[in-house]
Amino acid sequence: MTTQIRIGIAGYGNLGRGVEAALAQNSDMALVGVFTRRAPEDVATLSPETPVFAYDALSTDAAQIDVLILCGGSKDDLPVQSPELAARFNIVDSFDTHARIPEHFAAVDASARAAGTTALISAGWDPGMLSINRILGEALLPEGDTYTFWGRGLSQGHSDAVRRVPGVAGGVQYTLPSETAIASVRAGERPELATRDKHVRECFVVLEEGADAAAVREAIVTMPNYFADYDTSVTFITAEELARDHGAMPHGGFVLRSGVTGQGNTQGVEYRLTLGSNPEFTASVLVAYSRAVYRLHRGGQVGAVTVFDIAPGLLSPKTPEQLRADDL
Amino acid sequence: MTTQIRIGIAGYGNLGRGVEAALAQNSDMALVGVFTRRAPEDVATLSPETPVFAYDALSTDAAQIDVLILCGGSKDDLPVQSPELAARFNIVDSFDTHARIPEHFAAVDASARAAGTTALISAGWDPGMLSINRILGEALLPEGDTYTFWGRGLSQGHSDAVRRVPGVAGGVQYTLPSETAIASVRAGERPELATRDKHVRECFVVLEEGADAAAVREAIVTMPNYFADYDTSVTFITAEELARDHGAMPHGGFVLRSGVTGQGNTQGVEYRLTLGSNPEFTASVLVAYSRAVYRLHRGGQVGAVTVFDIAPGLLSPKTPEQLRADDL
Repeated sequence: MTTQIRIGIAGYGNLGRGVEAALAQNSDMALVGVFTRRAPEDVATLSPETPVFAYDALSTDAAQIDVLILCGGSKDDLPVQSPELAARFNIVDSFDTHARIPEHFAAVDASARAAGTTALISAGWDPGMLSINRILGEALLPEGDTYTFWGRGLSQGHSDAVRRVPGVAGGVQYTLPSETAIASVRAGERPELATRDKHVRECFVVLEEGADAAAVREAIVTMPNYFADYDTSVTFITAEELARDHGAMPHGGFVLRSGVTGQGNTQGVEYRLTLGSNPEFTASVLVAYSRAVYRLHRGGQVGAVTVFDIAPGLLSPKTPEQLRADDL
Repeated sequence: MTTQIRIGIAGYGNLGRGVEAALAQNSDMALVGVFTRRAPEDVATLSPETPVFAYDALSTDAAQIDVLILCGGSKDDLPVQSPELAARFNIVDSFDTHARIPEHFAAVDASARAAGTTALISAGWDPGMLSINRILGEALLPEGDTYTFWGRGLSQGHSDAVRRVPGVAGGVQYTLPSETAIASVRAGERPELATRDKHVRECFVVLEEGADAAAVREAIVTMPNYFADYDTSVTFITAEELARDHGAMPHGGFVLRSGVTGQGNTQGVEYRLTLGSNPEFTASVLVAYSRAVYRLHRGGQVGAVTVFDIAPGLLSPKTPEQLRADDL
């Protein structure tokens, strides 16, 4: 193995922890340390050997990090941190506010170009791997329709909404693809489907002592924006069941492209993720893309890029010669 | 639309016909013509407006073609044609003899570098789209196993073998993924599977007048190399049924990556092709990659490349700005 790629982690929640775990699976990479806005002594890393530094240390010592992986949130952290840190580091982020991606790209690009760094934004699985498969499906089958389904997955925002209902002591919400919608797409019927037609919602709820189950159910399934437009089920469980059965963070999703070639031959392309841990898979994607950013930077490419700009071979630890011989 | 990309087709069998059909679905491309070793007047193209030229015309007039798509066979045609034509054109080929890819790459690369052209070899779906998903699965989930399954698809070589059995008047053979093997992989059991464990074979056979059905069946299912090691079914049909139900060229396949992250969370990635027409889908892939070759060449990149070297965005007719705004 040649010199390892030196990685820093900025921010240490579920995603940062996932990056720490993923780096341990990639022998061509080394973890320099975690940079946190909390008191470093309060941060318990997965490995006791992982160094933890104050976030401010990033402003004084950039020389030891080849790529910094940003693990903050898209709402408040990344819009500020990504442009700021791209002025000193090659970075990878997972910015996922779809509507603001062009604006975020422009800010990071300006910062990275001025500094001569390389910055990949919006990596992960959606945006990320599913995005790649949306554009590949369209490019390979120009006459067709693309469908993205999400789930079965834990939805943080909808779980919060359930927990705010009076009478609810605890609960989680899962989003599932609708079997009816999938069957229609698979059959090549090319239906027009809104997000609410494509998904159903499952709630698992712990009632407060003496709460009225029927009233809670009604309050959930009629909640505007969150549940009213969906086929929603509510299952009441005990606090013990909630703790035992609903602690994981599964998610997933798939992209289907259904198209036609020649004189009417149906062609189907499907890309499907079934994730036992959403943050750990997202982290694994960020780590693979940090390898690509390292290589782009060494090749002299600066500025902002997205997953659309990254050739598949750049993500693999193998050499181009190995890939051609072993994997084509 | 800006200037169209001018495409030539070298060789006009099922694949060349598929390329002609695919180009009609891509408004940023124009077909210059078909180049054939047959007498041009004997070639009936899908569109009566498609110009047909003698193959030798390629040696005199290269200026009008931006990318030449080679539609010959991997056994005899491409090993000679690809290096030869890469000396005058940007090319895309579908060379699929896995074991000889490094040698083919070296020959085409030398020719293209000397001439300053850009040449993409081994495009299609396997090698091609499935190859990409093999290396992505490994890069994203380093601890795991990769499984490639083929089918349901018509196998030309095995169909020929069936037709050579005494007493057989006609027939076709389909390869199917084994449901047992798929279920084991999906369940995360990470089984070790040889190709024969992963697939079953279905034969549809028309008997000659007076032939012994039991003897024919026995001769097929015990045939060494072709069928003896497989779970093989033989169904006898009429000549009318063969013509009516078995004229298409369906195929497909999928790549499954089953991996583990963190403290044992199972992660699954699956890429699946269900193809109504094998040659038409392969042709659609070649056409999308010819767009990428055109762009690489304009960007100054010369020499041989494979699908591993092509960023997804290069395959799309959209601009990078459009892709970021619409598809991330």
